[in-house]
Amino acid sequence: MSTKLRVAVLGAKGRIGSEAARAVEAADDMELVAALDRDDDLDALVGAGAQVVVELTAPSAVMGNLDFCVRHGIHAVVGTTGWTDDRLAQLRTLLAGSPGTGVLVAPNFSIGAVLTMKFSQAAARFFESAEVVELHHPNKADAPSGTATRTAQLIAAARAEAGCAPQPDATVTALDGARGADVEGVRVHSVRLRGLLAHQEVLLGAEGETLTIRHDSVHHSSFMPGILLGVRRVVGAPGLTHGLEHFLDLNLPA
Amino acid sequence: MSTKLRVAVLGAKGRIGSEAARAVEAADDMELVAALDRDDDLDALVGAGAQVVVELTAPSAVMGNLDFCVRHGIHAVVGTTGWTDDRLAQLRTLLAGSPGTGVLVAPNFSIGAVLTMKFSQAAARFFESAEVVELHHPNKADAPSGTATRTAQLIAAARAEAGCAPQPDATVTALDGARGADVEGVRVHSVRLRGLLAHQEVLLGAEGETLTIRHDSVHHSSFMPGILLGVRRVVGAPGLTHGLEHFLDLNLPA
Amino acid sequence: MSTKLRVAVLGAKGRIGSEAARAVEAADDMELVAALDRDDDLDALVGAGAQVVVELTAPSAVMGNLDFCVRHGIHAVVGTTGWTDDRLAQLRTLLAGSPGTGVLVAPNFSIGAVLTMKFSQAAARFFESAEVVELHHPNKADAPSGTATRTAQLIAAARAEAGCAPQPDATVTALDGARGADVEGVRVHSVRLRGLLAHQEVLLGAEGETLTIRHDSVHHSSFMPGILLGVRRVVGAPGLTHGLEHFLDLNLPA
Amino acid sequence: MSTKLRVAVLGAKGRIGSEAARAVEAADDMELVAALDRDDDLDALVGAGAQVVVELTAPSAVMGNLDFCVRHGIHAVVGTTGWTDDRLAQLRTLLAGSPGTGVLVAPNFSIGAVLTMKFSQAAARFFESAEVVELHHPNKADAPSGTATRTAQLIAAARAEAGCAPQPDATVTALDGARGADVEGVRVHSVRLRGLLAHQEVLLGAEGETLTIRHDSVHHSSFMPGILLGVRRVVGAPGLTHGLEHFLDLNLPA
Repeated sequence: MSTKLRVAVLGAKGRIGSEAARAVEAADDMELVAALDRDDDLDALVGAGAQVVVELTAPSAVMGNLDFCVRHGIHAVVGTTGWTDDRLAQLRTLLAGSPGTGVLVAPNFSIGAVLTMKFSQAAARFFESAEVVELHHPNKADAPSGTATRTAQLIAAARAEAGCAPQPDATVTALDGARGADVEGVRVHSVRLRGLLAHQEVLLGAEGETLTIRHDSVHHSSFMPGILLGVRRVVGAPGLTHGLEHFLDLNLPA
Repeated sequence: MSTKLRVAVLGAKGRIGSEAARAVEAADDMELVAALDRDDDLDALVGAGAQVVVELTAPSAVMGNLDFCVRHGIHAVVGTTGWTDDRLAQLRTLLAGSPGTGVLVAPNFSIGAVLTMKFSQAAARFFESAEVVELHHPNKADAPSGTATRTAQLIAAARAEAGCAPQPDATVTALDGARGADVEGVRVHSVRLRGLLAHQEVLLGAEGETLTIRHDSVHHSSFMPGILLGVRRVVGAPGLTHGLEHFLDLNLPA
Repeated sequence: MSTKLRVAVLGAKGRIGSEAARAVEAADDMELVAALDRDDDLDALVGAGAQVVVELTAPSAVMGNLDFCVRHGIHAVVGTTGWTDDRLAQLRTLLAGSPGTGVLVAPNFSIGAVLTMKFSQAAARFFESAEVVELHHPNKADAPSGTATRTAQLIAAARAEAGCAPQPDATVTALDGARGADVEGVRVHSVRLRGLLAHQEVLLGAEGETLTIRHDSVHHSSFMPGILLGVRRVVGAPGLTHGLEHFLDLNLPA
Repeated sequence: MSTKLRVAVLGAKGRIGSEAARAVEAADDMELVAALDRDDDLDALVGAGAQVVVELTAPSAVMGNLDFCVRHGIHAVVGTTGWTDDRLAQLRTLLAGSPGTGVLVAPNFSIGAVLTMKFSQAAARFFESAEVVELHHPNKADAPSGTATRTAQLIAAARAEAGCAPQPDATVTALDGARGADVEGVRVHSVRLRGLLAHQEVLLGAEGETLTIRHDSVHHSSFMPGILLGVRRVVGAPGLTHGLEHFLDLNLPA
């Protein structure tokens, strides 16, 4: 009798979805029981006995897909974007009607990116200064990246909570833009360079020392370990989990 | 009525000790009530009403100094080295007889160095590969540094506990030493370069991404925030605390 | 009348060869007139009117191919490896009989890698200390990389020529391998990490300052600009040119 | 008979001047024959037989000092700032009247900083993208640093001369300042962080690869090797030399 987790992928023809399907197949403890895309019937999930769905479709499709899954008691790991407070509230209501079912919604499945954010947040209150430099390929449309903005906000919140003084900065004459974007008091700099993919460096400075936390992402395959970890954990985590960090058990041992 | 912490420094004429005395004086919430060195009488601590002692003397003096402090109910923050399991046990026995008194013994007071170790330990199990590169001035006598060896051991232990496979390494032909020192399966590389002081980089790699945690220490003033934090916390932490990390509250918020 | 360079690729079905063929096609100033592989007849080069051949085959095939090209006055840019002093002498003899024809043999077509080597060589004599850290994927069989060894040798030679003193290093107790491999007095460290491709960092240190030159190669597409530059330059460089650096005009302007 | 260079320091009580005096004394091939400051008589230079003066005073004093030196045939190495085209022209006129005398005026005596600029300039035309990140202590008043602005200008000029296309940048939505300051088409980012002194990173990117040149200055002692090199070379370089790079012989060997 197989004890493998029965996993389905929605959006299985997409770039990330097809890779996720392969990653599930390659995992010793999982079985890929369905790989659906846009025009496929969700009933196939029930027929295949799927326990967990990996949802990698589009903002316009995700709520309908999750409605189906939750009503059928199928857990879900969701990488599709477009989540607002309203949508999250809607999902919570849905889950309230299916007490044993779990859904993980994660804005980022790269474990390295999530650790970078959590470590920065944990370290922020010990340092006078904190800035973020994010570096991406030059085809990126937005600056700063969403991850860099979120990281700066987490740092700012941690500093505020600890009662840190504003960051020291004696700049009196500056070219426009030299000191970067101001995200709640934390400066964020966006480099765009051919030959890069997605990189982020958090610099923390105190008297006599600096701490640098850098994440380099060179391929979207870096999302797969986080997706698989999400699949394994969501079956034991009923209700809504928002953010992969909740599954990383980061209570740092002393 | 002053509510400042009454702090004394032992070893106040040493390089670190004299800096610690200045740091205590500069702290808003502390008062430097005594600054003693080799030939001074410890009774002065009692006369001065010291609540906490910062102990920065020598391995040959530290046990006697702590015996005096603990018996007089004076808390201590200890940066002096030379601690063995025997000595720690002796100190615990001493503390058992003075239940309200706390002693912090810390091998490293740089908050950045401690965070580097703890973050590396917490992240280690999520990555296939982990190596340590430490970089110091060329006058250093030992390689690797004690901090790098300790970091590698913490990474190795975290990987073992999580059941990680051995690190991938297809090297078949190598010049002697190219792959660094093997510390419990974690490779450690020691760079010696004029113009550097003390630096450490922990590299963690998984499919498609790497996470780098780097600590740069450019002046021993970097120990002061950790010493002051120790002073503030030790008065509320009876018994022995071994390692500054216990005072950093690193249960990372989700 | 087209004035584009007429270029052929030998080894056009290989990984690098097929990419080179695409790069030639995409270049505004070149025309791909032939793309041959193992079983194709070299006479096609003449029929196609090829002016330059990009040779990306195998050590066993390269000398025969070059013999044909040089005798027919076709210039060549050669990425195939396996060059010994004997083979280079043989090629020079061949070229002596065809005075207007040029051949570029380059061990590395990544402009970034070549610049890293040349800059390190030029800077070496100004710094007391120099070490090399190379970082690669864990499937690599040799350590250090050929590029790192070559870089260290260039640094050592530049230091020797300038009469530099041996590097300072006070290490007295070391774990085996901690200080890296000794390449003519220059230490080289090899990191192997999942998530990396091919990276090299040259660290130079003097009193109060360090200079770091780092090359990150994340895809073999990085060879294409160097190959195209070679094609453009070899038609005006009769005889043997050994190393892409000769075409980079690095007489640094003041 | 001593064959040591007879060197005097002007501004010998200043922070850099006093260090320069010590560096001259420590150099095997030099003799410190005078160390003058504000109120000292320049005639002492003649009395002491100074061959070379190291000029580290103030913009208000430097022209008078050089007038004296050049008229007395004393060579000069000048670190004082405030040079305009007018002043340089004035100095050239002065030197025309004393054909054997040499003066080196250098905006930066850190060899590492100068090499960073020259290497960036030499490499710029080979890469699609180039950005500069400079990082300094938070007490710095200007952003970007003068060195970073100068580096960006050299990169821009090299790209223009080689006919490079504008840098790729698809940014359409950005927070104010995120993309840094625009210096002639080259983006410059200024980080201000406690624990840093003066650092600069030049990032160059092409398809599949990046080249990074980083200079870390941790102490103004890093100016001394450049000053001593200037002293040794200026005696054989009559007329005005503007910039230390002219004495570094950077015609890169192939």
